[in-house]
Amino acid sequence: MTFFGVSQRINQERFEGEFRELSGIGSTGDGGVHRPALSEAHLAAREWFRAAVVEAGLEFYVDSAGNHSGRLFCQDPEAPTLLIGSHLDSVPNGGRYDGALGVLAALEVLRTVKELAIQLPVHLEAIDFTDEEGTLIGLMGSRALAGTLKAAELHNPRGGWEAFSAGLSRAGLQEEGLLSAARPPGSLAGFLEVHIEQSNRLSKAGANIGIVGSLVGIGSVQIKFIGRADHAGTTSMDERIDAGIGASEFVLSSRHLVIDEFPTCVCNVGKLDIQPGVLNIVPCEAVLGVEFRSPDQAELTELRKKLFSLAEDIADKYDLGIETRSLGQIPSTPCSPEIQAAFRSASERLGLKSIPLNSGAGHDTMAMAAVCPAGMIFIPSTGGSHSATEHADWEDCINGANVLLQTALELALV
Amino acid sequence: MTFFGVSQRINQERFEGEFRELSGIGSTGDGGVHRPALSEAHLAAREWFRAAVVEAGLEFYVDSAGNHSGRLFCQDPEAPTLLIGSHLDSVPNGGRYDGALGVLAALEVLRTVKELAIQLPVHLEAIDFTDEEGTLIGLMGSRALAGTLKAAELHNPRGGWEAFSAGLSRAGLQEEGLLSAARPPGSLAGFLEVHIEQSNRLSKAGANIGIVGSLVGIGSVQIKFIGRADHAGTTSMDERIDAGIGASEFVLSSRHLVIDEFPTCVCNVGKLDIQPGVLNIVPCEAVLGVEFRSPDQAELTELRKKLFSLAEDIADKYDLGIETRSLGQIPSTPCSPEIQAAFRSASERLGLKSIPLNSGAGHDTMAMAAVCPAGMIFIPSTGGSHSATEHADWEDCINGANVLLQTALELALV
Repeated sequence: MTFFGVSQRINQERFEGEFRELSGIGSTGDGGVHRPALSEAHLAAREWFRAAVVEAGLEFYVDSAGNHSGRLFCQDPEAPTLLIGSHLDSVPNGGRYDGALGVLAALEVLRTVKELAIQLPVHLEAIDFTDEEGTLIGLMGSRALAGTLKAAELHNPRGGWEAFSAGLSRAGLQEEGLLSAARPPGSLAGFLEVHIEQSNRLSKAGANIGIVGSLVGIGSVQIKFIGRADHAGTTSMDERIDAGIGASEFVLSSRHLVIDEFPTCVCNVGKLDIQPGVLNIVPCEAVLGVEFRSPDQAELTELRKKLFSLAEDIADKYDLGIETRSLGQIPSTPCSPEIQAAFRSASERLGLKSIPLNSGAGHDTMAMAAVCPAGMIFIPSTGGSHSATEHADWEDCINGANVLLQTALELALV
Repeated sequence: MTFFGVSQRINQERFEGEFRELSGIGSTGDGGVHRPALSEAHLAAREWFRAAVVEAGLEFYVDSAGNHSGRLFCQDPEAPTLLIGSHLDSVPNGGRYDGALGVLAALEVLRTVKELAIQLPVHLEAIDFTDEEGTLIGLMGSRALAGTLKAAELHNPRGGWEAFSAGLSRAGLQEEGLLSAARPPGSLAGFLEVHIEQSNRLSKAGANIGIVGSLVGIGSVQIKFIGRADHAGTTSMDERIDAGIGASEFVLSSRHLVIDEFPTCVCNVGKLDIQPGVLNIVPCEAVLGVEFRSPDQAELTELRKKLFSLAEDIADKYDLGIETRSLGQIPSTPCSPEIQAAFRSASERLGLKSIPLNSGAGHDTMAMAAVCPAGMIFIPSTGGSHSATEHADWEDCINGANVLLQTALELALV
């Protein structure tokens, strides 16, 4: 089936011009942006997006979770919607590509389809999800739209209740709205997202496009080693029961465990608090916050077990007490095989080299996969992530948007 | 010289009764006391001490650093003073023996000498020093009296400016007073202190009395490992520059360094803060607070060098940046050989087994050694230190007070 060829392309100049404009909103002056979810800068970016949608002759829509959309309707009112997008919010002092690129690429796809007057059997919708980054809740808008956001989470927002409630009030949103934003079952034909890779696998492989097979599952646990608060001057070294020793051995050993036995996983001891935290008292308590990720669900569970058992062995070795608890687990999310295949053939048609990879980070695609076929591609990026140094070559951005366009057409028409 | 024999003893019942009374002031209900320096409970204990001094027919005296004393004058107004004492303040939720025992034993010594009408060629003074424990400054009263407290320290009190200034105001003290409390040169014949051991060397050795040869020197350093704050999901394990790894290796290796190469020293990593301290970001900074102690000054300096060089090696190994700085060094303090000998012969006369040992903790004796011959004994204690479980058998407390009495008499009369 090749009634659509490779001639359809997004408008590079417009795309780039708009990206520059948008990058100025909440700019930190060093190439980055500071647009935490529902902050003034974020709301300004959303207002900019609304204006761009209206100017493009698309229908502007905001749902009760604050998700902003541009819609291009097909002739059949009963047709399902192919949703394409990402998010305009950033982490505090984040980069200008993360999320924003995916929203603008989606808008470009809709404009191009509209300009070329291609008749599709689906509605298209370019969406900017609320609070992907988790300044307030995390994947808030996409999970609200998928109907998987839970009331309990709203009562204990990860960014704190005050920030959450102030954000909602700035944006004119209500908790009830967040919990009633689910799209009707069957109304979504699929979800597509383009995003920067935030790693270096693509550039190492000399590839243009990374087709995500799975978004990693994320587990997090808290491990508390319990020692004894002795006088650090009068207690001999061999009589101490030092919680900091257990914590330190766990940091080193958990790293080796993952490198040696779980090569497709990662693990981070991102929090480490020792008590009482004074120079002259032997630490009586060390609390570690550990996060680990795997593209495979069974492996994620196995790794959590191994981390707990490692912690228990270390506690035994040093006579420490131990308390372990799971802080939560986000299952790994496989992407739709059909969408992966469509990304692959679209890349091929455009003469781009694609490779399969997994996403080490969470994205809105994770939430959308719960309710419709969902897929995501990465384009090469450098300079790390969640920082002003984050960078993508403009040619790669254009490639990503064109793969998105070709994939949308293929999915809709083939 | 045996014109005084072993017949002079303190009054056991009075000593014990007063100890029980005093332990009720600021009691935490679990055997401990909460009498941080210049807190209401501490001031109540001092008021109790004043009343006891007056009741004993001794002269009550408060100097401009708030040190509280009972004085027993000899016939020669020009005679020097043999000072005996310790402190009534405690760490927050501390034990009832630490400090208080030494103040009451000193008071007992003066009362016994007064009751027996022994004519001495020195004045005796039983003293309760202000803020030994360092809730505000640390060894504040004894260093004020020794003239070694520095104005700069008052501007950066370790307990914070607010607590310091509120404490002074509660007690009616002034900063100027702290800096002008030094006793005239030559006015002090010596200083004696009895204290619980806060360790188990005496009980291990089956000894009644520990005669302190040296109070350890204390060094403290800050070590900062500098990594890179990468995304904990998208950054592979081998590309992380994780400050927490360096910190953990330092915690474990510094312990081995001290155990293997510095067997008479101790070392404690009591503070460990990692930044940014969130689960999904690789730690970019780890700041360690390290304290180490040695009875020998040269060894203390050598150990500090080795700790810094260990930290640098670890930083090299993991590609981390590093910043090290010394937070201060308190030199080790040898006790007066004459006073040690007097403690030894007093113990012998009383049929008590004494052993020499060093003090791993700081005490007011450290400050006093700067201006007069100073010495200190320990009695056996269990249950750790700076905690409600701290305990000394009453027989050992009595032994300590009697050694103090016999030593004071020997020093004054021989």
